[in-house]
Amino acid sequence: MPLFYPNMASKPNARSAGPAVVTLLSDFGLADAYVAAMKAAILRTCPWARLIDVTHLIPPGDILAGSFALERAVAAFEPGSVHLAVVDPGVGTSRRILVCEIAGRWVVCPDNGLITWAWRRMRPVRARALRVFPKIASPTFHGRDIMGPMAGAIAAGESLAAVTRPIKNPVLLNVAPARRPAKSGQIIHIDRFGNATTNIPADALPHRSPAVIVDGKKLGKLRRTYGDVRSGVPLALVGSANLLEIAVRNGSAAVELGLRIGMTVNIA
Amino acid sequence: MPLFYPNMASKPNARSAGPAVVTLLSDFGLADAYVAAMKAAILRTCPWARLIDVTHLIPPGDILAGSFALERAVAAFEPGSVHLAVVDPGVGTSRRILVCEIAGRWVVCPDNGLITWAWRRMRPVRARALRVFPKIASPTFHGRDIMGPMAGAIAAGESLAAVTRPIKNPVLLNVAPARRPAKSGQIIHIDRFGNATTNIPADALPHRSPAVIVDGKKLGKLRRTYGDVRSGVPLALVGSANLLEIAVRNGSAAVELGLRIGMTVNIA
Amino acid sequence: MPLFYPNMASKPNARSAGPAVVTLLSDFGLADAYVAAMKAAILRTCPWARLIDVTHLIPPGDILAGSFALERAVAAFEPGSVHLAVVDPGVGTSRRILVCEIAGRWVVCPDNGLITWAWRRMRPVRARALRVFPKIASPTFHGRDIMGPMAGAIAAGESLAAVTRPIKNPVLLNVAPARRPAKSGQIIHIDRFGNATTNIPADALPHRSPAVIVDGKKLGKLRRTYGDVRSGVPLALVGSANLLEIAVRNGSAAVELGLRIGMTVNIA
Repeated sequence: MPLFYPNMASKPNARSAGPAVVTLLSDFGLADAYVAAMKAAILRTCPWARLIDVTHLIPPGDILAGSFALERAVAAFEPGSVHLAVVDPGVGTSRRILVCEIAGRWVVCPDNGLITWAWRRMRPVRARALRVFPKIASPTFHGRDIMGPMAGAIAAGESLAAVTRPIKNPVLLNVAPARRPAKSGQIIHIDRFGNATTNIPADALPHRSPAVIVDGKKLGKLRRTYGDVRSGVPLALVGSANLLEIAVRNGSAAVELGLRIGMTVNIA
Repeated sequence: MPLFYPNMASKPNARSAGPAVVTLLSDFGLADAYVAAMKAAILRTCPWARLIDVTHLIPPGDILAGSFALERAVAAFEPGSVHLAVVDPGVGTSRRILVCEIAGRWVVCPDNGLITWAWRRMRPVRARALRVFPKIASPTFHGRDIMGPMAGAIAAGESLAAVTRPIKNPVLLNVAPARRPAKSGQIIHIDRFGNATTNIPADALPHRSPAVIVDGKKLGKLRRTYGDVRSGVPLALVGSANLLEIAVRNGSAAVELGLRIGMTVNIA
Repeated sequence: MPLFYPNMASKPNARSAGPAVVTLLSDFGLADAYVAAMKAAILRTCPWARLIDVTHLIPPGDILAGSFALERAVAAFEPGSVHLAVVDPGVGTSRRILVCEIAGRWVVCPDNGLITWAWRRMRPVRARALRVFPKIASPTFHGRDIMGPMAGAIAAGESLAAVTRPIKNPVLLNVAPARRPAKSGQIIHIDRFGNATTNIPADALPHRSPAVIVDGKKLGKLRRTYGDVRSGVPLALVGSANLLEIAVRNGSAAVELGLRIGMTVNIA
């Protein structure tokens, strides 16, 4: 990790490790007490955890959307961080519960594909499944009663050996980063600004001046940032996730170009 | 509290108490700086408090909705936690400000019925009313200027004796948990998934295989979890609040069955 | 700062300083992982920072709305607090990045007018601009790659001398607090309750019983709080930001009076 401000006079302890980070991601929304209940459960096994919300506005049951946001959280935080992700339409059924180690971070989530995007973009990855469960758990809220306490226990440094077993085959969705030379890809995420992110990593682009075509519209050569075109003009650029992104300066590419998740993007 | 993962090797301090928890619940919304201002006020009297948002999306002035979410927060956290709840259409008028002790937790809120659901579901309960007020307080923001500092002071361990007096009769809304054998009840909450929670506790159900009828529709026998029926099928089950709940698997019971707060639910 | 509950028996350390506060304000929304990524960046330079969200629901690119919320955050927290504000449609262009000291608090934000309302309402103010930038920064996410680490570095107590230079002329929007005797002003903010805040400070009102007129409607004499009129009745009062505010008791002044940002308010 580069020190961004190396000229600043560091105090001796300025970069020492803080408390264990546990991030939370769900489709619970922000109007109910579900998220707070999950936080209480984490604090019960790790009272000093630092809790960071990723988002709780994943559309109900939308595992792909959850998977994309989860990868962003895992990539953002340091090794040793713990990431609890609960988009779990199969709660209480026989679906497994995963504890994955991904590039030194830990992820706790249901085994329903939620791990997909992190699993496919980061290395190394290892999966385990829970094999010991609390005797008293609501069959409708495993985020509070099983996964939350487990995330806290990992943050507290407890050993996983006794309560999990290695597995080889977590459930994965049918979506993956495009490989070089990428001739096409698909839109996998649309953000609040209407910017559309594709599954095409910057290093999979076929050459330095790719032309991007979506829904029959040519977006011209790759730009560096939004301000490189005039207001209202569409553009393609490499976004902050290091993936090809389609935007409209000071506007919504989703609205103005009619973009939707799953649409094909061609590279020429 | 059961240790959910008793097989895990605990580190000596893994379950030691963390910093004092103060939860926040309001109808302030998330677009303004009101919540942050209330947090600043709490930190002024308890700089090391751990602040946890319950929700700030209670519909403006909706005391019943606030009451239900507040009980969920109080029940989720350990004794000693402090819960600040501000849905306060009468701010600045002569309504009292409560400090309640509920099953070892503390609640600070206006005396307008917001305490109702926690008061009626948990034991033991004791109420006090503030009798000393800060000289300089905005008449429109007691969450920041009176209740926030008080919540922090309680979290900091300060004594309440000098600034409050015991009261017997907090304002309570006309809603209560159904008693056994419950022949009927009402819908008291609808969550983001469209699941409808009733005021019927699991232990008030008249027998082990109750049939649930809402708006003339029979939902069949009680299920264990959402996945026990096929996608799109309505069901009744005991939800994570230990109350009878009506749901549609992978759908919204509220939308698909036309459920609304206050509707009657019959048990046969 | 008054001690609001001076009668309470203080514990020796009850008012000692807590960890450094860093607040966050943006137009990133709450559905994506952008806010979490920015928090990770802050923690990298200040692992023990206390992170407080102000709001992330500023309408995309709405610098005036961001400016108003930012001032509220700066005013709410103690001197020494750090406030990161990112409403940044010009990200990656040549616009400057500010580090301002405002009444002993620190603000880090793009130099696009976001500082306006804090700059005009609080004293003393001093501005610096970043002159050292990290070599590796996404041209589309300076909140994560430049401003976040800088906010953390300030919270960690690092010196600004080597990485910033004093400037005299931050970009300011064309909005300012009205001066006494204020004959008119404008609506600068509408909150979740539909209450409309103006740019008229309480001490700029021309006399003690001002009559407030908006869109041709007389609101009568200044009231103390919402409960001073009957339900559904419009009123004018001094709100919690110490600015003239227009409200409707138990209703939305914005909806019921047709109020919008920028509307003129007259004082007679």
